[in-house]
Amino acid sequence: MVRYRLTVEYDGGPFVGWQRQDTGLGVQQVVEEAITAFSGEEARVHCAGRTDAGVHAYGQVAHFDLVRGDVTTKTVRDALNHHMKPHPVSIIEAEIVDDAFHARFSATEREYLYRIMNRRARPAIERGHVWWVPQTLDAEAMHGAAQVLVGKHDFTSFRASICQAQSPVKTLDELRVTRVGDEIHIKARARSFLHHQVRNMTGTLMDVGRGKWTAADVEAALAACDRSAGGQTAPPDGLYLVRVGYEPL
Amino acid sequence: MVRYRLTVEYDGGPFVGWQRQDTGLGVQQVVEEAITAFSGEEARVHCAGRTDAGVHAYGQVAHFDLVRGDVTTKTVRDALNHHMKPHPVSIIEAEIVDDAFHARFSATEREYLYRIMNRRARPAIERGHVWWVPQTLDAEAMHGAAQVLVGKHDFTSFRASICQAQSPVKTLDELRVTRVGDEIHIKARARSFLHHQVRNMTGTLMDVGRGKWTAADVEAALAACDRSAGGQTAPPDGLYLVRVGYEPL
Repeated sequence: MVRYRLTVEYDGGPFVGWQRQDTGLGVQQVVEEAITAFSGEEARVHCAGRTDAGVHAYGQVAHFDLVRGDVTTKTVRDALNHHMKPHPVSIIEAEIVDDAFHARFSATEREYLYRIMNRRARPAIERGHVWWVPQTLDAEAMHGAAQVLVGKHDFTSFRASICQAQSPVKTLDELRVTRVGDEIHIKARARSFLHHQVRNMTGTLMDVGRGKWTAADVEAALAACDRSAGGQTAPPDGLYLVRVGYEPL
Repeated sequence: MVRYRLTVEYDGGPFVGWQRQDTGLGVQQVVEEAITAFSGEEARVHCAGRTDAGVHAYGQVAHFDLVRGDVTTKTVRDALNHHMKPHPVSIIEAEIVDDAFHARFSATEREYLYRIMNRRARPAIERGHVWWVPQTLDAEAMHGAAQVLVGKHDFTSFRASICQAQSPVKTLDELRVTRVGDEIHIKARARSFLHHQVRNMTGTLMDVGRGKWTAADVEAALAACDRSAGGQTAPPDGLYLVRVGYEPL
């Protein structure tokens, strides 16, 4: 048996999310069917972060096992890309890893990017790839308020009601807001996140950007430990899983 | 009568090109129908560069006239964007200009960007927005060869057979090739271009990038003044009309 680690890029637009579901096509199903198509084996693919419907990934990490041990990483990458051709999913890299490696449980860091298109005109070329906010936002104020959220906190106020994590306590290592031309980029980095945490923090920071909230309001929302105290959930379109970090084996 | 100048962004993917055609939807038709929808007037829209099917624009410039003289530029921008909502076309800016202004004939400079995605894995997120070339390209060699094309030349070797320009002689002011991460960007700037000129130059430079051609081969192709001496036509997906320049009025 050989374990393969994949780095996966996808456009979340047409999918119900990473996970296999009865309601539509998941990225997981696309990858699993491509594995069967080229190897004849029925492999289960595990990922580092199960992204929601419409959320994109530049660097999702996943792993799967093949019983036959003679398939090179180049063949895995190219054969999967060949069979996934109709779908906006692409294997950037395939590597052979130790059996102890698990895409989800071995991960020590996740990095997300949230892109807000902040201009009067709605996006044409970037449609589906950004959250369009026409009202001018103050990126500096957003960055200042974001620092309230950095560190170890109970993030219940920014957690989806359907979140399955055992504890609402997480350590947010970085939350950086920068203006890049017409866009505002929010970089979020942590060992792990609660369900919808990045999108809920983004929706809250948007309220700071348009002057409705202050950093003190964000602090109060965090302290309330109540989802209804946080801001809106930003749409999935602007969210990207950029990178997953692992300890060197 | 009031003349309006528009800066237009669009994703060329779903269109037959800028121009109205019987074979499908053109960007021109989308804009013209939106003008009629908000003003009741049947205006003709003229653009700076009639992009082909699949070619994108960040900064196409167009103009049109309204008989009624009471419509603000803000209303023009927002009303057009409202009526064009189903389509990936967006008015970035609307301005009132002198009657002497003509989007096409007053233009003194056009700038295009060509994006090549140069990596083994095909693009997922940027699908339709780049030309995917899996073979590693030498961007420096491409840039060197590109300098052969800069200046005043007979560009017959890089001109589409259906090109309607009176003369094949053009002055290319800039042709810059740079590597940006996994992508190679080609910036082309001139007063005007022949039909398919940027895409034909790009296809030729690609042959230099993969070591099939040298700068001397590009020089010989240019001197041949024969389309069959030039390289292939790069696909429309990677081409963007970035900016149109005008003399200050």
